Amino acid sequence: MVSYVKDVYVVLYPNFTALDVFGPVEVLGSIKEYTIRYVSLHGGIIHNRQGIQIITEPMDVIEPGGIILIPGGYGSREIIKDAAFIQRIREAVQTSEHILCVCTGSALAAETGVLDGKQATTNKTSFAWVADNHANVKWNRKARWVADGNIYTCAGVSAGTDMALGFVRDRFGADIAESICRRMEYHWNSDSEHDIF
Amino acid sequence: MVSYVKDVYVVLYPNFTALDVFGPVEVLGSIKEYTIRYVSLHGGIIHNRQGIQIITEPMDVIEPGGIILIPGGYGSREIIKDAAFIQRIREAVQTSEHILCVCTGSALAAETGVLDGKQATTNKTSFAWVADNHANVKWNRKARWVADGNIYTCAGVSAGTDMALGFVRDRFGADIAESICRRMEYHWNSDSEHDIF
Repeated sequence: MVSYVKDVYVVLYPNFTALDVFGPVEVLGSIKEYTIRYVSLHGGIIHNRQGIQIITEPMDVIEPGGIILIPGGYGSREIIKDAAFIQRIREAVQTSEHILCVCTGSALAAETGVLDGKQATTNKTSFAWVADNHANVKWNRKARWVADGNIYTCAGVSAGTDMALGFVRDRFGADIAESICRRMEYHWNSDSEHDIF
Repeated sequence: MVSYVKDVYVVLYPNFTALDVFGPVEVLGSIKEYTIRYVSLHGGIIHNRQGIQIITEPMDVIEPGGIILIPGGYGSREIIKDAAFIQRIREAVQTSEHILCVCTGSALAAETGVLDGKQATTNKTSFAWVADNHANVKWNRKARWVADGNIYTCAGVSAGTDMALGFVRDRFGADIAESICRRMEYHWNSDSEHDIF
C-alpha cells in the first residue's frame, strides 16, 4: 500500500523570497497527508528583507522519503558559497522522494550536482547566472516549470504556485489540484510549457 | 512635499492564511519606501496550520499614518470574537492612511464598523458568513477587489496579490506595478471588477 503521508521540508536561509515559499506552502498545505516543516542549516530564526522572522528546525531533522522545497531569493547568491549548506542539501535531495525548486532555488540544487544531465528551469532575470554556472544541466528557458524524474524546477517567484499545483495534479489528480485553486481563488497557469515571461 | 515612506503593519493572529499575507508582502516589499512589520495583539510568536511560526511585535507599536494589512484565514472566525483585538484593529484603522483587507480579513475590519456604508468584498466561500453578519456594508460579490476611499478589500487568498498590485498602481503608477509583476513573473488579474470565481 502506498502511503501519501509525508513531511514537506521547506529549506530556508537568510533573504529567501517570501512568495517562493508561501505560494507552494498554500498549495501543499492543502493536502491533508502533508505536514509542512521549516528547516535551515542550524535551525533558529531566519530573517529576510521582507521583515520576516520565522522559526526553523535544523536540517538534521530531515528524514528520508519526504519532500524538499528549495526557494530562491537574493540570499541564494550568498548561501550557494556555503559548502556546509550545499552538502546538507546534497544529502537531503539524495534521500528525498521529491525535490521542488522555485526560482533560483534551482541554482542551489544544481550546485549539488543532482541536476546534472537533467531538464530544469529557473527564473528569467537570473537565468544566465544560474545556467552559465551549471552547464551540465539541460536548461529550458521557455517552460513555466519542468518535471524530470523526482525533481521539479520552475521559473521565478509566482511560478512556484503553478508548479506546486502541477505537482499535486501529478500525485493526486486534476480534480484535487482544481479544488485547491478554487479555495485559493487562484488563476492557475496550468500549462507547464507555456510562460509569458 | 508628500512622503511615501511608510510602515506596512501586517496584523497576524493564530491560523491566518499564509498567501493572504505573503502575496501582498511580495508586492509591497518591492516598494523601497515601505517597511514591512508583523504585529499581533500582544506580540510574540504566531502559529498557523501551515506550520508557520513567525515573530511579531505587539500592536501597540502601530504609529498613525501607516498602512494596515489584515489577512483572512480559518482563525478569523475565532479572533473576530476577541473584543480586545477588534478594538485594537478599530484604533489602528482610524489612524492609518490605508487599510488593505484580504479574504475574510474584511470581516475583521467590518466588525469594527469602519466599513459601514462602504463598498467592499470578501472571499466567495465565506461570503454569506461575512456579509450576513455585517449588513451595513455594501458588499460586492462580483469584484476581484474594491477600493472605497482609503480601504481596499478583496476576494479570497490569491486576490490579495492582485489587490496589492492595484494599490501600488493607484499610488505609484502602472509602470511600477507592471515592473513588480515582471520581477515576480506574475500573471496579474489587473481588472478589479472581473473575477472568475
